[in-house]
Amino acid sequence: MPNTVHVLNGPNLNLLGEREPHIYGAETLADIEARTLDRAARHALDIVFRQSNHEGVLVDWIQEARAEKAAAIVINGAGLTFYSIAILNALQAYDGIIIEIHLSNPQRREAMYHDSLISKIATGVIEGFLGDTYELAIEAVALRLRRG
Amino acid sequence: MPNTVHVLNGPNLNLLGEREPHIYGAETLADIEARTLDRAARHALDIVFRQSNHEGVLVDWIQEARAEKAAAIVINGAGLTFYSIAILNALQAYDGIIIEIHLSNPQRREAMYHDSLISKIATGVIEGFLGDTYELAIEAVALRLRRG
Amino acid sequence: MPNTVHVLNGPNLNLLGEREPHIYGAETLADIEARTLDRAARHALDIVFRQSNHEGVLVDWIQEARAEKAAAIVINGAGLTFYSIAILNALQAYDGIIIEIHLSNPQRREAMYHDSLISKIATGVIEGFLGDTYELAIEAVALRLRRG
Amino acid sequence: MPNTVHVLNGPNLNLLGEREPHIYGAETLADIEARTLDRAARHALDIVFRQSNHEGVLVDWIQEARAEKAAAIVINGAGLTFYSIAILNALQAYDGIIIEIHLSNPQRREAMYHDSLISKIATGVIEGFLGDTYELAIEAVALRLRRG
Amino acid sequence: MPNTVHVLNGPNLNLLGEREPHIYGAETLADIEARTLDRAARHALDIVFRQSNHEGVLVDWIQEARAEKAAAIVINGAGLTFYSIAILNALQAYDGIIIEIHLSNPQRREAMYHDSLISKIATGVIEGFLGDTYELAIEAVALRLRRG
Amino acid sequence: MPNTVHVLNGPNLNLLGEREPHIYGAETLADIEARTLDRAARHALDIVFRQSNHEGVLVDWIQEARAEKAAAIVINGAGLTFYSIAILNALQAYDGIIIEIHLSNPQRREAMYHDSLISKIATGVIEGFLGDTYELAIEAVALRLRRG
Amino acid sequence: MPNTVHVLNGPNLNLLGEREPHIYGAETLADIEARTLDRAARHALDIVFRQSNHEGVLVDWIQEARAEKAAAIVINGAGLTFYSIAILNALQAYDGIIIEIHLSNPQRREAMYHDSLISKIATGVIEGFLGDTYELAIEAVALRLRRG
Amino acid sequence: MPNTVHVLNGPNLNLLGEREPHIYGAETLADIEARTLDRAARHALDIVFRQSNHEGVLVDWIQEARAEKAAAIVINGAGLTFYSIAILNALQAYDGIIIEIHLSNPQRREAMYHDSLISKIATGVIEGFLGDTYELAIEAVALRLRRG
Amino acid sequence: MPNTVHVLNGPNLNLLGEREPHIYGAETLADIEARTLDRAARHALDIVFRQSNHEGVLVDWIQEARAEKAAAIVINGAGLTFYSIAILNALQAYDGIIIEIHLSNPQRREAMYHDSLISKIATGVIEGFLGDTYELAIEAVALRLRRG
Amino acid sequence: MPNTVHVLNGPNLNLLGEREPHIYGAETLADIEARTLDRAARHALDIVFRQSNHEGVLVDWIQEARAEKAAAIVINGAGLTFYSIAILNALQAYDGIIIEIHLSNPQRREAMYHDSLISKIATGVIEGFLGDTYELAIEAVALRLRRG
Amino acid sequence: MPNTVHVLNGPNLNLLGEREPHIYGAETLADIEARTLDRAARHALDIVFRQSNHEGVLVDWIQEARAEKAAAIVINGAGLTFYSIAILNALQAYDGIIIEIHLSNPQRREAMYHDSLISKIATGVIEGFLGDTYELAIEAVALRLRRG
Amino acid sequence: MPNTVHVLNGPNLNLLGEREPHIYGAETLADIEARTLDRAARHALDIVFRQSNHEGVLVDWIQEARAEKAAAIVINGAGLTFYSIAILNALQAYDGIIIEIHLSNPQRREAMYHDSLISKIATGVIEGFLGDTYELAIEAVALRLRRG
Repeated sequence: MPNTVHVLNGPNLNLLGEREPHIYGAETLADIEARTLDRAARHALDIVFRQSNHEGVLVDWIQEARAEKAAAIVINGAGLTFYSIAILNALQAYDGIIIEIHLSNPQRREAMYHDSLISKIATGVIEGFLGDTYELAIEAVALRLRRG
Repeated sequence: MPNTVHVLNGPNLNLLGEREPHIYGAETLADIEARTLDRAARHALDIVFRQSNHEGVLVDWIQEARAEKAAAIVINGAGLTFYSIAILNALQAYDGIIIEIHLSNPQRREAMYHDSLISKIATGVIEGFLGDTYELAIEAVALRLRRG
Repeated sequence: MPNTVHVLNGPNLNLLGEREPHIYGAETLADIEARTLDRAARHALDIVFRQSNHEGVLVDWIQEARAEKAAAIVINGAGLTFYSIAILNALQAYDGIIIEIHLSNPQRREAMYHDSLISKIATGVIEGFLGDTYELAIEAVALRLRRG
Repeated sequence: MPNTVHVLNGPNLNLLGEREPHIYGAETLADIEARTLDRAARHALDIVFRQSNHEGVLVDWIQEARAEKAAAIVINGAGLTFYSIAILNALQAYDGIIIEIHLSNPQRREAMYHDSLISKIATGVIEGFLGDTYELAIEAVALRLRRG
Repeated sequence: MPNTVHVLNGPNLNLLGEREPHIYGAETLADIEARTLDRAARHALDIVFRQSNHEGVLVDWIQEARAEKAAAIVINGAGLTFYSIAILNALQAYDGIIIEIHLSNPQRREAMYHDSLISKIATGVIEGFLGDTYELAIEAVALRLRRG
Repeated sequence: MPNTVHVLNGPNLNLLGEREPHIYGAETLADIEARTLDRAARHALDIVFRQSNHEGVLVDWIQEARAEKAAAIVINGAGLTFYSIAILNALQAYDGIIIEIHLSNPQRREAMYHDSLISKIATGVIEGFLGDTYELAIEAVALRLRRG
Repeated sequence: MPNTVHVLNGPNLNLLGEREPHIYGAETLADIEARTLDRAARHALDIVFRQSNHEGVLVDWIQEARAEKAAAIVINGAGLTFYSIAILNALQAYDGIIIEIHLSNPQRREAMYHDSLISKIATGVIEGFLGDTYELAIEAVALRLRRG
Repeated sequence: MPNTVHVLNGPNLNLLGEREPHIYGAETLADIEARTLDRAARHALDIVFRQSNHEGVLVDWIQEARAEKAAAIVINGAGLTFYSIAILNALQAYDGIIIEIHLSNPQRREAMYHDSLISKIATGVIEGFLGDTYELAIEAVALRLRRG
Repeated sequence: MPNTVHVLNGPNLNLLGEREPHIYGAETLADIEARTLDRAARHALDIVFRQSNHEGVLVDWIQEARAEKAAAIVINGAGLTFYSIAILNALQAYDGIIIEIHLSNPQRREAMYHDSLISKIATGVIEGFLGDTYELAIEAVALRLRRG
Repeated sequence: MPNTVHVLNGPNLNLLGEREPHIYGAETLADIEARTLDRAARHALDIVFRQSNHEGVLVDWIQEARAEKAAAIVINGAGLTFYSIAILNALQAYDGIIIEIHLSNPQRREAMYHDSLISKIATGVIEGFLGDTYELAIEAVALRLRRG
Repeated sequence: MPNTVHVLNGPNLNLLGEREPHIYGAETLADIEARTLDRAARHALDIVFRQSNHEGVLVDWIQEARAEKAAAIVINGAGLTFYSIAILNALQAYDGIIIEIHLSNPQRREAMYHDSLISKIATGVIEGFLGDTYELAIEAVALRLRRG
Repeated sequence: MPNTVHVLNGPNLNLLGEREPHIYGAETLADIEARTLDRAARHALDIVFRQSNHEGVLVDWIQEARAEKAAAIVINGAGLTFYSIAILNALQAYDGIIIEIHLSNPQRREAMYHDSLISKIATGVIEGFLGDTYELAIEAVALRLRRG
């Protein structure tokens, strides 16, 4: 499925729009999903858009993307970004494009948010643009696929 | 539900009374639940008392307490206390009273038990009183609610 | 004197109610002493309630509590909590119940307030409940004494 | 069940043989399970062989081994080895033989793989022998049981 | 000049296409400038595109962008990213959009490239997409300006 | 007492002129007090000039300055500067001008003299000018008071 | 030129009065230069007052002050204070009075502003008095020269 | 000599059975040598079994094993494991199988025993099985040789 | 007073014989004083033997020994040894023989007892011989004085 | 220009002979240039000998040496050696011989001089031989070129 | 041999009297041996006095003292004190009195001399008294033996 | 013997040419010895050229060079460079020229090779020129002796 992009969201992102909107913005995850699908449609990309509070489920989903030979994984690992070696290892077993995203810029937050494990393996990173971050990630996948 | 207190228990607390009783005491979690309910009854507080070995389930439960506008969350995160940023983030999205509890005093144990993530956001902390810790937490909620 | 509890307060706690009330609350130390005595009376406990800005005086008082075989020491070491090995050593020579208390939750403050020396030896810790902290400490002593 | 050995495998080990074979070897987890059963048969040991991507499930399984009084737990915690205090605590509640295994030698990899939590409690450690590691672990259990 | 974006490039980026192409790609800085202008034209943005090996010149240029009230600064600080507090301070005096970019993902390189000073103040960060990074940054500015 | 400045001196400063004069100069504390009074007289400021080897006494004196609403505290904490959180807390409860002074420049000495606790709260710092340091501190208070 | 004092200002100080006035005050660098000249005139001192965003230019100017045998260098290194070993080395080659100044108290800011390289060699340090800092530095030079 | 295994033992292992038997077991090194030879015989392997208190002698012996093209080196470096870069370098010059062994599990001891230098180069590690460790190492060599 | 030795004892040493006798021995401080006087008499040395729980008092006493030109200070700083820069500075102002003593060997205790400030300035250190430590210190003074 | 060697000198080296001659020797940079040319003449090497106080100029010069395909760069980065990633990156883009030199041995100085960035990429390092260092570097280039 | 004391000296102590006499004193090791024998004679103790530059030889000698059931080992490990875990382990196997000695006070030297491995196991430590150190160690053994 | 240079080689250098030739070059130690003698002959210097795997032997040889008043010691400490304080101390007792050499540039290798103990005392350091390093060291000795 060379045109499918899996957009995976980690713990508490289901609360988007309600939780600390001064940091994460007022859009809900559903709003962002809609924008992501729109942007993907422009580039003829299919989107699998999912959220879970469970590390193991996210590992399962990454393995699924791998099994289906998805073109890219766009992952907002949320809190798990910083300690889940299990997610890092799952991503290492996948050889497509990996884009790490964050709504806010973690480097502006406390030290525990400064060392992303996912960054060690991501093709690229986009962070700090709130809901726009997701659109930019799709744009990045499209640009990359176009060049091969 | 302004009178409901969610008492959430993390991994391995279901083994209480069996696991290292010289550290954690001989009471089972059921014994402690009974004492907690008794103490809550004195203050006309309702208790939701739960235990899970799964981080994701604990995140879900914290989100539930938030959705139900519970008066307080009393949380014994057990081992997850020290690395689960996912649980920390779930608690940050909740704006009621948060009381972190531990049966033993973690500062007297190995270094890996010295930096609680939950402490960064807890209203207060009570630790080291074995089964009494739970009763004291209920007492603390009651005192706090009384003063407003 | 098996029913006596020494409540010892460290430097600057005599300014309570005036100093940074957004952190430490508006009650004065006298207000808190009154509440402590009330709560103790419910449990037939006698209270020795003292405050000093001098480390050496606090060491002397801990030694006194020890000499008098007091049932418990409840100690708010204030700033000394984090560097006074002299106070730690005095407490180590005492074999009754030791409860460390703080009005605020030190883990939410700067790093210099994160490693309590007193925690290394305390039976239990209660922190973050402002004036209620003292009442909860008395409650904890009473629960403990009741169980033996 | 004094002759049962639980062999527990953590996240992503279901991808064995596919994921980075230059590091982890070309055998699949099924291949290894077969060898493990063979070797166990020589020593009249029963094997429970399981894999999960979920930390909580692994904790549950360790508690099961404990409840069933299994002779030994052989555990390849994979990525969870290095941060799951929940798994460490579950193992601490078990008093049989605990053998930590790894297919590769983690000390030859990045720093994040150098401090195993499981090592703090394991009876012994065997690592770096790819599929042979599992056979050696069974051999180690057999030797140990023979001596009592 | 609310539609002007200053794209500033630090030391050695004039060697792009020649220096370590397996890391930084084969495009020259002129190629990238052309793509940047194209992408900007789509969004009716004007571009000031500059490169210098001199920290002081970069500070001067940031001050110029500030004086001219440019809509955004897109900055690839190259090596200076990691130690130039002077550049950080110049950016702090600017209150438009600041986007930090890197051709490669610095988190995959040596430790000296892990702590960006610019990240402490950037609105957002985009890194690892080689020449595409610049186009994505323009896209990000456009998205942001559109929403206000 | 809006024109009173409390000049507080910590442990061993009573030995000034005798102790390591190559570092601290040949003037005695009495010499320096005289110069301080002279300089203060020029600006119509009253001086309370004190020295103690006792941390608790210094805490008491800071509280006195606070109670008397002194215009400024000029404090040479000597060795206590680097570990007395009790003194830091006492100063935090005071809301006038706080000037930290040292006869020598502590950054040129051993590492244990590099992290002043008082600096975390001081309005300003003056150090390294031997006896002149005191005069400069008075000058600084005068300048500040003049501007309001 | 035994009566000349070089007052050297580092990067971004040309923005004074505009950049973060709640930290650095509302005076411009020209305002401060005027006050400095006034204060110097009282003590018959000549002033060379300069600002640059370029580390190399600051090194050149320090070497000039050295060549001209200036009586003192008063230096506000701004951001360069914390990493420019080149400036430190230039100052080490100068044997007159060196006074390090800062408008704010860097110890109250983030950790990257805590270890000044210039402090390792400065005769004295004055910081935190906004524009007054410059006047105090001139006063300090005058006092020092008077005593010889 | 493709069937020869050199089993090298470091300082103080000649005291085995006498030194801290609660940690290292009651078997003497001679007992263990006998078991090692037995186990090797099963697999038609020849054993060179040696012990020295001298780092240089161990380096010499490793060079000998290398010169003789031994099939494997099984090494219990004892205390030298943690600081002898000379032994590490000697092992790096050898390209056969290297198995690091320890009688106890060093991760359960003090921090100085946590970072093995030999682990950086060992094919595999076996530790914590007392005398059985040696038999398991022979088994590991045999398994490895059989697969090639 | 060239034959006087001041033996100074820090906090909690008045509890000697009662506090943790398995570490500090069963002798009281009075017992030790008697032995110290006996041993001193053999060498015609006068002893001033004192104990205080107050840091400031110990500083005062060190200054007294200095003023009286005592031949030596033997100091058991107890807990203050590890953080009292005030005591360190007082000792630095004294130029006779300084002998640091401890009843137990602090290097065998927790990390907080590993870095003595007094050691930075002591002529010599004697530790770990319980009550004998004091006699050895007197012997050391006598030997030193004899050689000049 | 296969016989050209660029000898580049960083900040403050123009003061050689005047600045701290006990550390850096009494020769001026001109003296050393003369010796360097002499030694180069013996080996038929051409020398470009330059000094700058400006990091950016040094980066430009390294790029020039690269553009001219010089045989070698001999660089004394002076203070910039320890923080200029810009210079490190410029050198990384050059694929000839790089020799790092220092007049003194930086490992004998303060910690800030212990971690050279240039060492991470240099072919070889020569340091501590004062003016001779330059001659030895030319000798090293000649030896290397001779062997190819 | 309950009256024999082994006095063991590590690397370079054979140069005593010649090497850095301002630190280690002017006495040779032979001088010190003579004094040691004299002092031992007073207490009817036999002395085995040895020096080696070889770590392995020192380990052998400690094992000899152990085999002979010597009353005490007095050890000046010199440089090996700070890294030889082999010597530490040899001493751990010995259960008599262990006294660590040093001629100078290592805490007054560079950081690499601050953490003695031998201190972790020594009964007591005596350091800083030059040749007297040896006599004091004999005195300490005698005192200890007398009390049993 | 003012014209003798001792060239001392540490552990495993006898394997030169065989061990990791891509790092250390293809020349054997005998080849290098020959080149060293040739180069020394040009400058009328005598060479003592030795290698040992034993730390103690290297200490003995350094003491010999000292006893014979050799003009210089050129030392390649190999792995011992980074932990042998015994060798460092032996070199400190020698007051001739000390040149530390390494075949490769240790700063380009793992962190354990970054902090040379020998550098703390060496006159100069030459590293990274493979076999040429030895010739350059002889050249450095000759230059130095010529200037006196």
